[in-house]
Amino acid sequence: MANASVTAAACANIAFIKYWGNRPGGLNLPLNPSISMTLSGCVSTTTVTLGTSGAPDRVELGGAPAEPAAFVRATRFLDHVRRAAGRAESAQVASSNSFPTGCGIASSASGFAALAAAAAGAYGLGADPRELSRLARLGSGSAARSLYGGFVELRPGSRHEESFAEPIAPESAWPDLRDVVLILSEAEKKVSSAEGHRFAETSEMFAGRLAAIPERAARVRRAILDRDLTALGEASEADALSMHAVMMTSNPPLFYWSPRTLAAMEAVRAMRHRGLEAYFTIDAGPNVHVLTRARDLVAVQEALRAALDAPMLCCSPGPGAQRRETAP
Amino acid sequence: MANASVTAAACANIAFIKYWGNRPGGLNLPLNPSISMTLSGCVSTTTVTLGTSGAPDRVELGGAPAEPAAFVRATRFLDHVRRAAGRAESAQVASSNSFPTGCGIASSASGFAALAAAAAGAYGLGADPRELSRLARLGSGSAARSLYGGFVELRPGSRHEESFAEPIAPESAWPDLRDVVLILSEAEKKVSSAEGHRFAETSEMFAGRLAAIPERAARVRRAILDRDLTALGEASEADALSMHAVMMTSNPPLFYWSPRTLAAMEAVRAMRHRGLEAYFTIDAGPNVHVLTRARDLVAVQEALRAALDAPMLCCSPGPGAQRRETAP
Repeated sequence: MANASVTAAACANIAFIKYWGNRPGGLNLPLNPSISMTLSGCVSTTTVTLGTSGAPDRVELGGAPAEPAAFVRATRFLDHVRRAAGRAESAQVASSNSFPTGCGIASSASGFAALAAAAAGAYGLGADPRELSRLARLGSGSAARSLYGGFVELRPGSRHEESFAEPIAPESAWPDLRDVVLILSEAEKKVSSAEGHRFAETSEMFAGRLAAIPERAARVRRAILDRDLTALGEASEADALSMHAVMMTSNPPLFYWSPRTLAAMEAVRAMRHRGLEAYFTIDAGPNVHVLTRARDLVAVQEALRAALDAPMLCCSPGPGAQRRETAP
Repeated sequence: MANASVTAAACANIAFIKYWGNRPGGLNLPLNPSISMTLSGCVSTTTVTLGTSGAPDRVELGGAPAEPAAFVRATRFLDHVRRAAGRAESAQVASSNSFPTGCGIASSASGFAALAAAAAGAYGLGADPRELSRLARLGSGSAARSLYGGFVELRPGSRHEESFAEPIAPESAWPDLRDVVLILSEAEKKVSSAEGHRFAETSEMFAGRLAAIPERAARVRRAILDRDLTALGEASEADALSMHAVMMTSNPPLFYWSPRTLAAMEAVRAMRHRGLEAYFTIDAGPNVHVLTRARDLVAVQEALRAALDAPMLCCSPGPGAQRRETAP
């Protein structure tokens, strides 16, 4: 089995309650609980093949060698995996996304979830989902959630053991929920969310956000179990605005919105005003996710197309990470 | 002297530290200190002529009878003046602005400052500036600042006597500061700031904003006295973003930005990035005020024109309210 390849696939996710701000120490220990839906169709597929001990790792993203920052992030993550497994082999990583990278769709979430699942397989760690979720969190906080399908919560924590994701409900629990992703920019964002988390506590608004989240998270959990789009949407918009308020008031201020982000938010409010129920949420990027019901999907997409000339993806609640081994 | 007319003129102002949120009770008692520059050229001119006791007031804005909401606000203000003066005559008010109304230039500030000065004269109240400032505050909180020229601070308070404006420095203290007002929309805003103040405390962010203001206000006062555009601009941007963060996270959320507001903010950041020093601030409306030095004015206006097709006003530090009486 030496040099076997393990391939894993994981979907991105969209958070209704955002993860923003973590504890110092590089372990991606979030300061607040976050809740997301795993997104069908936005998939990272990652293959890990072990090499000789002590050799440098090799990382390919989308068929090309990774840029230095992405390489360092991946190899540091692999160090965590090797430490956990008591192994020393280098790894050859090949990863590809079914969607543009670094543009507000959480490519680091699907990417590190797939890498965690593949690397854990390759290095002979178990497949305990909670353990895989902790491991993925070390690569990217939101990746912890992408191990699971459906609706998922990531627990905050002050120690590595405390912070892992847990399912709230499987994808079958709310099959007609839709997330229309408006791709407003495929450009990489200027400040990655991995960096941005460090600035959260410099915002005069951050303590207020943290204090408000438990009640909002409870509303989101209930909304998921009740399939209540109104409650989910209102809480999700409020939480996204709260996160971006923290970003814009941090030092330095972080701006992820473009003029078209604002136009999309206006278009969503206008839809609601005329009785078409849809809600926006926005990650750390310019793209706008629009939550709606399957039966309103065509009308929502038409309204978005009338307001903005932008490509769209349409996602449903998606499955958790999956992996397969292939003989060398 | 019966039926004498008193005419007063007052300028709008732009706040570096914004007034947002007040105490219940209708007296416009702010919860935080605010600091502004009075704007040359953005003038409201108001004439008050007394009529017979007990007759209804008559209010004309820009030559046309005031809309019901504006009429009620003016006549309530006149009731305050009559109560203070122990008088009962009705008033005929004619007011006009040199700039569009309700579009983010504080027309209520210049309007109520001019009305306070004119009505106080017509009803025989004194001309004590602190007393006039308190009186103007009853019409509109920010009007209290427009009584003074130059750089002005409005004190918060829990009682009418405590809350009035005071000069920080006259307009001659920093004559080459400029405020370029980008008129992005002349439409009336959907939620007036008079209404919006009531929602401030529903934001999870408001307590954090209030706690951060004393230090930021101290930086702004120092920056004015030192003529330090960098310090003034950084604090003004931070405060504007803080206020809009509160607005967007209040319940209901208040959105005053348009896509072009965001484009203007981006244009200002891009100017700074290439060494042209300018800073934005935004009131409760879509328009963007750009602070810069007189010597950079042309370059800033050209850069704004290249980014946005929008009319601009250019203001300097302006004078305080002035009045004159005319015999009937």
